[in-house]
Amino acid sequence: MHTDRKRLSVVGIGPGEESQLTGLAVQTLVESDLIVGYTVYVELIREIFPEKEFLSTPMMRETERCRAALAAADEGKRVALVCSGDAGVYGMASPVLALAKDYPEVSVSVIPGVTAALSGAALLGSPLTGDFAVISLSDRLTPMEHIEKRLRLAARGGFCICLYNPESRSRSGYLARAVRILMEELSGDTVCGAAKNIGREGEVCEVMTLEKLLTYEADMFTTVFIGNENTENIGGSMVTPRGYRDL
Amino acid sequence: MHTDRKRLSVVGIGPGEESQLTGLAVQTLVESDLIVGYTVYVELIREIFPEKEFLSTPMMRETERCRAALAAADEGKRVALVCSGDAGVYGMASPVLALAKDYPEVSVSVIPGVTAALSGAALLGSPLTGDFAVISLSDRLTPMEHIEKRLRLAARGGFCICLYNPESRSRSGYLARAVRILMEELSGDTVCGAAKNIGREGEVCEVMTLEKLLTYEADMFTTVFIGNENTENIGGSMVTPRGYRDL
Repeated sequence: MHTDRKRLSVVGIGPGEESQLTGLAVQTLVESDLIVGYTVYVELIREIFPEKEFLSTPMMRETERCRAALAAADEGKRVALVCSGDAGVYGMASPVLALAKDYPEVSVSVIPGVTAALSGAALLGSPLTGDFAVISLSDRLTPMEHIEKRLRLAARGGFCICLYNPESRSRSGYLARAVRILMEELSGDTVCGAAKNIGREGEVCEVMTLEKLLTYEADMFTTVFIGNENTENIGGSMVTPRGYRDL
Repeated sequence: MHTDRKRLSVVGIGPGEESQLTGLAVQTLVESDLIVGYTVYVELIREIFPEKEFLSTPMMRETERCRAALAAADEGKRVALVCSGDAGVYGMASPVLALAKDYPEVSVSVIPGVTAALSGAALLGSPLTGDFAVISLSDRLTPMEHIEKRLRLAARGGFCICLYNPESRSRSGYLARAVRILMEELSGDTVCGAAKNIGREGEVCEVMTLEKLLTYEADMFTTVFIGNENTENIGGSMVTPRGYRDL
């Protein structure tokens, strides 16, 4: 870790439990003066590092949060901006890197973490063994027609699919709409799975068919997995084989 | 960690350096009697846990390696089967879960890890911020026509793309062939990147255009990233914005 210049680290903290952080993420948080993040994730980290200075901002204030982190780093504080899962995947690394041009003395480093596609997959078995696509159903930053096109093309290509943000209070019915699109390309028997509250209280996962997924009650803490035509339910685990010549 | 029954853990160890393992992965290795894996990854882990018993098998002997790990667990040893990156993504969790039906007393758990899509992305900036697809160019287990179809559909869908196994000694020219397919769908100016030897000696990364990627010399330790039409080169970092209404 270089300490000779101003530095902001964008840190992926994994699904939530302390044991899922990498050693590098822990070390970066230990060495930081200020930890910045969305309220929910800051509370998770505060339990592990109660002695640190924290700054939390609500969900929608991402740009503000990034600027606050960059400004604090520019003032000489060692700053960690925490993101759930990975720092890049639907995370803060991108807006920080875009805004960093206004803070030329601050060097940004990105510390990767276990994103929900990986932590949820591990709970279910091995749904993302081969080629896969990750798609967010949130249309807050992406037009719905792009999302729907991606669902169709991913299913048509035989990708296994991992869905982030399947539902939220303001986006009810989005998962069912996505499943209906997928059923135009895939059999209703396609093996699917869902994981809720990964690495947190209330962690639960379930393997089901695509048809069953149509009426599954997802929320904003759910990650959904759609298999390809080779994915199997093996004794309650969702397992995609490595390839056609293998197991 | 349950110790009341026979257990095999499939452990993703991340890109290679000790600091990129999660706490749970470290704990699982500490608590294991026997560590099994492909020779190269076993050597990485042996440096961290020199006192452990190890069993390594060459690259192509995956089924044999899984059976050896399951058989040792069935004999009562606490066994960890290590995979580079994640345990699921192009990893051993799938064949282990498929073979585990022959060892009904052994319970299999999957410990996720930082896969190259995440560790490579962090080195380059934030190429996989939004929806993305992961595709392996190895045709050892997947027919080349499936791979080519997936490349086309992923590019057409506006996914950012991460390529695993772009080349090897026996698969020379595969990356150039993939890039030529992608250039039918994407501009030659599309921002791309490559990371080599992530987390190991000789770690290096480079941001370039798709056209430049055509002649880039990849090897089996390279991970390649292809941006979408919004991906930018910001001061040498590869950055995909979060969405159309955002930064």
